[in-house]
Formats: sequence, C-alpha cells, structure tokens
Amino acid sequence: MAPSLDDVRAWDKDDPLRAHRDAFALPPGITYLDGNSLGPLPHAARERVARVVSEEWGRGLIRSWDDAGWMDAPARIGARIAAIVGASPDEVTVADSTSVNLFKLCAAAAALRPGRTKLVIEDGNFPTDRHVLDGLARLLPGLRVETADVPGLADAIDGDTAVALLCHVHYRSGARHDMAALTGAARAAGAIAVWDLSHSVGAVPVGLNAAGVEMAVGCGYKFLNGGPGAPAFLYVARHLQAAARSPLQGWIGHASPFGFSDRYEPAPGVGRFLAGTPGVLGLAALEAGVETVLAADPQALWAKSARLFDLFAERVGLRCPGLDLATPRDPALRGSHIAFRCDNARSVMQALVARGVVGDYRPPDLLRFGLTPLYLRYEDVWTAVESLAGVLDPVPQTAGV
Amino acid sequence: MAPSLDDVRAWDKDDPLRAHRDAFALPPGITYLDGNSLGPLPHAARERVARVVSEEWGRGLIRSWDDAGWMDAPARIGARIAAIVGASPDEVTVADSTSVNLFKLCAAAAALRPGRTKLVIEDGNFPTDRHVLDGLARLLPGLRVETADVPGLADAIDGDTAVALLCHVHYRSGARHDMAALTGAARAAGAIAVWDLSHSVGAVPVGLNAAGVEMAVGCGYKFLNGGPGAPAFLYVARHLQAAARSPLQGWIGHASPFGFSDRYEPAPGVGRFLAGTPGVLGLAALEAGVETVLAADPQALWAKSARLFDLFAERVGLRCPGLDLATPRDPALRGSHIAFRCDNARSVMQALVARGVVGDYRPPDLLRFGLTPLYLRYEDVWTAVESLAGVLDPVPQTAGV
Repeated sequence: MAPSLDDVRAWDKDDPLRAHRDAFALPPGITYLDGNSLGPLPHAARERVARVVSEEWGRGLIRSWDDAGWMDAPARIGARIAAIVGASPDEVTVADSTSVNLFKLCAAAAALRPGRTKLVIEDGNFPTDRHVLDGLARLLPGLRVETADVPGLADAIDGDTAVALLCHVHYRSGARHDMAALTGAARAAGAIAVWDLSHSVGAVPVGLNAAGVEMAVGCGYKFLNGGPGAPAFLYVARHLQAAARSPLQGWIGHASPFGFSDRYEPAPGVGRFLAGTPGVLGLAALEAGVETVLAADPQALWAKSARLFDLFAERVGLRCPGLDLATPRDPALRGSHIAFRCDNARSVMQALVARGVVGDYRPPDLLRFGLTPLYLRYEDVWTAVESLAGVLDPVPQTAGV
Repeated sequence: MAPSLDDVRAWDKDDPLRAHRDAFALPPGITYLDGNSLGPLPHAARERVARVVSEEWGRGLIRSWDDAGWMDAPARIGARIAAIVGASPDEVTVADSTSVNLFKLCAAAAALRPGRTKLVIEDGNFPTDRHVLDGLARLLPGLRVETADVPGLADAIDGDTAVALLCHVHYRSGARHDMAALTGAARAAGAIAVWDLSHSVGAVPVGLNAAGVEMAVGCGYKFLNGGPGAPAFLYVARHLQAAARSPLQGWIGHASPFGFSDRYEPAPGVGRFLAGTPGVLGLAALEAGVETVLAADPQALWAKSARLFDLFAERVGLRCPGLDLATPRDPALRGSHIAFRCDNARSVMQALVARGVVGDYRPPDLLRFGLTPLYLRYEDVWTAVESLAGVLDPVPQTAGV
C-alpha cells in the first residue's frame, strides 16, 4: 500500500541520517532537489573559508603555504576523496576543473597506447567529456573520436582503441554503467578506460580499485558539497603512476617545485598531474564538503537514496501520471537523481522553482531532481511532488462573473 | 645627500597613495615585502568572500549562477584586468591557473603557425613557462623548444619560430623586457609572442594594445592581491580571437553551454578559452583584489615603486655593503621587486623573517623583496634594511666572564 504523509513523516523521524541535515545551511521555504548540480553550503565550509581568509591569508600571508598546509591540500583532500571512491590515499589528488583533468588523463592514457587511433565515448553524454576528446583528436594527429550507444559501447572498445571515456552515471537519465564490466572489457582490449565520476561520487557506491579502474576524474561541487566551481579531482591507479605523464607540465607537478629547475622532472606519484598553484579558497570549501560525505555511513546513504527514489517515483505515478520516468528503476542501474520526460519541461520547472521546489531542466524535455540523502527528508519528496502536481494540473479557476 | 629616517617619515606623510594601505589587513609586527609572491588580504575580499559563501551559495544556491553573476564573472573580471594591462574589455578573461593558460595559448599560437618548428623561451626564466613549452613539444610532433639568453633572444625568434614565450619581468632578477620591441621582432618574423605578465601586472605599466601584443597570460595572486592560488587571466588580441582555438575544449568555452550540444562550437570571443566550471570563491577574492589596484592612479603607483626601489638600493649600499644588487637600476628595465645576491641567502632570509621582515629566497643565492606601493611605506623599507643589516652583521657578543 502506498505510504501516507504520516508514514513518510515517521520515516524521517526514524531516519538514521537525520542529524546530518543540521550540517548544512538550507534556506527556509526551499525544497532543494538540485544538490546533484550544486551541493548546499556546509556550515563547516563557511567557517573554514572564513578562517582561511582572515587568519591564514590575512595573518599568515605567504608563510601559510607551509604553516597552514596549503601546499599539501591537493594530496590531503585527495586522500580523503580516495576513501569515498574506493582507492588508495596516494591514488587521488585535487586539481583544476573536471574538464582540464579529463584532458590531462585522456592525453596521458592515449600516450600510453601509441599507434591506436580510437577515442571511444558514449553518444549523448555530458558535453564537456565529448568536447575534450574532440579537442584532443583535433590536437593530436592519428586520433579520432568514435561514439557508441550504450548497447554497443563494450563492442566499440576494441584493439584499436586507446581510450574509452565513460561517464559512470548519465547526467540526464541517471543511468549507471557497470563499472567493473566495462573496465574489464577495456582492459581485455588493451584500452584504458577513463571514468568520469561527476554524477556518482558521493552519491552511489564507487569502488575504483575493486573494479580495476585505471584512471578517473570527478567533480567537487555536486554530491561532495564543495562549493560553486569547486576544484575537481583525478585518480591514477598506482601501477600507471610511473608511466603516465601529464601533457600539462606545470611547476606544482614537478618533483621539487621550489628547486626552480629548468628541467621538468615529474613528481613521483599522482601529484605529477598537478600543474599550477592550487586555488586555496576553493580547496578549503571542498575539504569541508568532502567531510560531510565521509561523516555518514555510505551504506546508509545509498539505502536512503534508493528509498527517496522509490518514494519519488511512486508519488509521481499517483499524482502526475502524465510524466514519464526516464531513469532506470533498478538501483543497480542508476545514480542518485531522478528524471522525467515532460512536455514543456522548461516552463514546468520554472513554475516549480517559483513555488520553492528547486530541481532543474535539461533540454529538450527533462525534469531532473537530485536525491541527496545527507540533507533531504522524505517529506521533502512528498512536498516536491505535490507542488509538481499543482504545476501540471492547476486547480481550475472559478469562472468569472 | 642620503635621506634620514625623518625625511623618509615625511615622505610617508606626504604620500598620495597613503590611504590605500587602509584597504588591507596587514598583521602587526610584520614588514611585508613578499606581495610579489602573495598579495595581502584586502578587507573587501574578506567581505566579498563571506557574502558569496553565506548569501550567494548558502541562500541563493544554484540560482546564483545567474542571479549573483557567477557565470559572468570570468568576463566581468577580465574586463577590469584589461583596464590594468592596456587592453580592450573583450580581450581578457579569467580562468584556470597561469600554467594551464600558458598551455592553452601556446598550443593555440602554435596551431596558427603550422609548419614552423621552434618554441622560443628565455633561458632560466620561471620554471612553469619552460615546463609548459617542454610538455607541448613532447605532446606535438614537429615542435622543439629553443632557449636563448637575453642578448640573443630577439635573434632566436626567426622564420621557423611559431611561438616565443616571454616573461615580461624576470621572477628572480626583476629585469624587464622591452615589450614593444620584442613583440615587434616576433611579428616581423611571423611568430606569435605570448607574454607572461605574472611579475608585472599591477606592478609596472603594461600596455598590451599599444605594444601590439597578440597573446598574454598573468597571475592573480601577486600584485593583483587576488588571494592564494587565485585564478589567472589570459588575453587574446581581437584580431586573433576568431582563429585561435583552445586545445582544452570544455563546456564553458562553448558558444552555448546550456544548449548541451554534442558538437563543440567555440564561443565567439576570448571566452572560448574557458574550459571547466569557474571557481566562484577564488573569483570573488580576485575581483576584490583587482579593484584595489584600479582604485589607485597607475602613474602614482609606478612613481612610488621607483622611489621605494631607490631608497632600498641606497640603504642597502650604506648598511649592507656586502650585498650585490641583482636588479637593473634603470626603472625602464625593471619590475617592482628588488633582488640581491648574497652568501647563505637561504639562512639570511630565514633570520630576517624571524625578525618580522618577510621577503623570500630564490635559489641559489638571491634575497628578493617585493615593492608594493599600494600598502608599503617608505619607513618599511628603512626598517627592512636595518633588520637585514642586523642579520648580516650582528652586534658582537660581549665576551663571557
């Protein structure tokens, strides 16, 4: 039997993750279902950024590069993200944006597979991934991009494939790839799979080492709650670290940056994929955001995400029957957002936001809602679907006199 | 006659830039001569960052990308930096780090000069510039890096040169190139000069358009006071904007990022050199930092820098005769720091910092001091040299009983 609002409130009362909501500044009157695009502000991030600005920058000045641990921040935060994605602490670092990291890793991977001509990517995935590969093919002679639909993706990764760039969770549909299977297929073909974890890190279980993943990148500002335009991260499996070279050789990726040598000698580990001076303010907020995820039991997070999803789908089925679920129902096949195809999706979402329910619209026809178990209540889902029903089927106006 | 301490105090009293010091949080007891490495905290940056975090991120959430002008920040701040470097507002944008921007522009410049094989750079300049070029030559077949000493630099830029990467002010010696002359030499040879303004922007007069400069990058965290690891900027002259392509094709450089098209269509202007999602916290601090520079008359800044230099050099000549000036005396030939060769420079600088005078050490033998007229007083120079004299020639200990 479908749960009632009272049932849903009881779930919130018994929710083992309930206290985590208090870690965030959530504005009153807003039901926030866009944490898959920009996570909300953790109170700890506000405090941490204020301390970095006033004390570390303001008082410590240049000395804070050492004294306040600024120089170590990429590796330090990388090690914490490693714990979220099932990697060793020395396999992850934080740098630049997702786009820049995709470029670095895909170029490095292609160089490890000389003579191969194909860069494979799923058709219709997140634009930046496709653009980065196209740019790489434009830059480097002998490489071309081949797109494939999901059923043909594993087959497209063949003996002529250097790199397969794979988005773990699709930014529109929320569909999730079988990471171990596709990585296995890539490795069997001698190709390197580069995973983009932007829509899965902090949201669904990710086990990079267990799946045999060799390279990955991910975003800091979505489920990691790292702040607007937070620095991104990258992962290089230990066995590739000595051979993989960043095409973007910057001084912070040098084995000895403060030796100021003319000769580039890459840092021994994943730190060789750093380039310029780390952006300290963005790192500070990200560090606090990452801790909000690590503070919770990952199994409990994923279980609650699944339950939020089921409730959302069920309530939409009852209250908004004209909407068409675009996300797989099987939890093993999806991430932590839910999407519906909808006529006039853009204006529907605008009307919904005007009612205080913040999801987003993705062209041409998708309503997209992030399911973020750290701070979302079951009742929020109820409220959101009621508002959506009101937008889709407004109470008819009484005929005028 | 050499000025006395009273003279110097009178200069401070009459300094037309005197009030600008109040814009900065300067810790008591510190004489800060490292603003050429990390500018100090502007009070406005602290306030701006706090507002971005608490209000724009905390309350506005995802809507702030539009409502708070986050999406426009790279172009908006770029236009303000353009006013500092003598460029049109639409020729500068803010993105990534200096290293990443060097890569993007040098790759773009090389692609505009197909068939040429040489990437020219001054020997012994800032490591990241050299590393980026070496990385590019490693990545792209048919390119090689050629280094030249200063007297031979213009001659090294010949008909086989695609790109000349030139640091406007040398990070060690402070020596400044003749930008117009070298740009003219490059253009005459059909090469593209890419200028690195990191040690000159906000410090010395820079007129990119007047000098015919075609491409440039620069750093946000030095004389622009943009905060630790602040985003960098890049400049592409209007006549090259349609043809120059970034090798780093990311979604924010797309003509229509929120069209989510598979096909990359570069933005029409300099915005095509953006790649990933802008780092909003770093941009907020940078914006406040840039305004500290724009608030002052550039002629007054440069005049005071020259006077600070002369006083520093004169006082060192009197009080520390063993030190060897490594920076050109002619203001037209230098930037806004002063460097001295010194035995045991590393430990001398450590002892000086312990006395509250913060400069820095650059291997193998340089003491380096930033001269930042916005917040430095003439008396600070006096104090610094007195402390330096004390470190170099300590008062002998009275013989023990």
